Amino acid sequence: MSWFTYTTRVRYNECDPMGIAHHSVYPVWLEIGRTEALRAAGLRFRDMEAGGAFIAVSKLAIHYRVPIRYDDEIEVAIRVDRATRVKVDHAYEIRREGLILTTATSTVACVGSDGRPREMPEAMQQAMESGRE
Amino acid sequence: MSWFTYTTRVRYNECDPMGIAHHSVYPVWLEIGRTEALRAAGLRFRDMEAGGAFIAVSKLAIHYRVPIRYDDEIEVAIRVDRATRVKVDHAYEIRREGLILTTATSTVACVGSDGRPREMPEAMQQAMESGRE
Amino acid sequence: MSWFTYTTRVRYNECDPMGIAHHSVYPVWLEIGRTEALRAAGLRFRDMEAGGAFIAVSKLAIHYRVPIRYDDEIEVAIRVDRATRVKVDHAYEIRREGLILTTATSTVACVGSDGRPREMPEAMQQAMESGRE
Amino acid sequence: MSWFTYTTRVRYNECDPMGIAHHSVYPVWLEIGRTEALRAAGLRFRDMEAGGAFIAVSKLAIHYRVPIRYDDEIEVAIRVDRATRVKVDHAYEIRREGLILTTATSTVACVGSDGRPREMPEAMQQAMESGRE
Repeated sequence: MSWFTYTTRVRYNECDPMGIAHHSVYPVWLEIGRTEALRAAGLRFRDMEAGGAFIAVSKLAIHYRVPIRYDDEIEVAIRVDRATRVKVDHAYEIRREGLILTTATSTVACVGSDGRPREMPEAMQQAMESGRE
Repeated sequence: MSWFTYTTRVRYNECDPMGIAHHSVYPVWLEIGRTEALRAAGLRFRDMEAGGAFIAVSKLAIHYRVPIRYDDEIEVAIRVDRATRVKVDHAYEIRREGLILTTATSTVACVGSDGRPREMPEAMQQAMESGRE
Repeated sequence: MSWFTYTTRVRYNECDPMGIAHHSVYPVWLEIGRTEALRAAGLRFRDMEAGGAFIAVSKLAIHYRVPIRYDDEIEVAIRVDRATRVKVDHAYEIRREGLILTTATSTVACVGSDGRPREMPEAMQQAMESGRE
Repeated sequence: MSWFTYTTRVRYNECDPMGIAHHSVYPVWLEIGRTEALRAAGLRFRDMEAGGAFIAVSKLAIHYRVPIRYDDEIEVAIRVDRATRVKVDHAYEIRREGLILTTATSTVACVGSDGRPREMPEAMQQAMESGRE
């Protein structure tokens, strides 16, 4: 499976008194990675939600290797590591000018509007399995 | 009408590289003021939402007078200035040891789950009119 | 003075249980407007901060006219309304497909690393006065 | 080593369109746990920072087991699992009425104002080793 990447710029309010991005902002950047990877495969979370399929994060692990500073332009890379009908494991890298600043993994599951596990919509399963996401 | 107050402590992630609370955090503190004032009057937004009545902020004006720092314990004061069946005007002060750091005003309106204006539930109207909120 | 605009997409975490962007996120979008307008004039806040000149928000007023939804692509427009050596008044509009969703104004002041008012760096003054920001 | 606990209430802006706390908010709650545990041991991060010792999160892993809803009152429990002169491993549980909703672990390191690793101040080392934090 190959990496999907997008670039973003670190916002002022995302940084703390140390002058670096606060560690709670990274999950937001990773989530945008999942959103944009899916969009690149022709799908949108907003449509999935309108159809009653929501994505819940089950596990998240982040290794903060190099600090990320205000106004830095960073590249967020995302890859599907494993996909079943109900769960997807992703791996992530955050990079700046080729340097890996952060590595992370997550497990997300599909849930219904009642919060209970359900199968992912077929289009999303296909996007995950083909690695097109 | 009298002030309702609650105290909170400034979180690390709420502060920016200047070492002070970021200006986008203040609306969050004001919203907690509305929530806690209503709770003190025996009502909960979560119950109102379950009943299909949501609160939408229509206007907000904040005057940032004195910077607020990480770990400061601040007092947020809130007062109903004017209430109708569909809208409420609030005034706010944020204080630290008697000093007024911030003043603000807002207008909130009641909307249904479809986002359209509706009358506030009667219990909320009474809380607002009596100034008990 | 003319509008400077940038576009951004509403993040999932920026939205609340009503399914719309939380009102505390708007100040973040407006701040990015100031940052990007300055960048378009060839200046960067990060360089100004490295030189000891910080921007503090003094006043902020927002009129939330039309709700903004998750995944919406919005256009943030910013304009200098008045600039002195120490303060700048901005006006803002947030738009989606030509519709004005939000209007806002702010006053920002230049402060030193000690938080006390100081003159803006000359390059920033010029950018503001010429309306190039 | 024993658990230190504090209670907090889930804020409206911390919740997403699913009506539950967004997964990026949990690191904030865990950080408050570290802050309050240290305060209970008689120390304050703000004083450490004034003395040039900052805490950087190196690793974070969160298992989101049960969703947390708006206005829920939750208990955040924190425990020192391992402490050296430069690093501390913590374990966390988030609970509601005795039910464990979330488990997490983190590694934090002490850095100077230049971002480079340094020894923790002695008072902090003692608090960690004695489990008083």
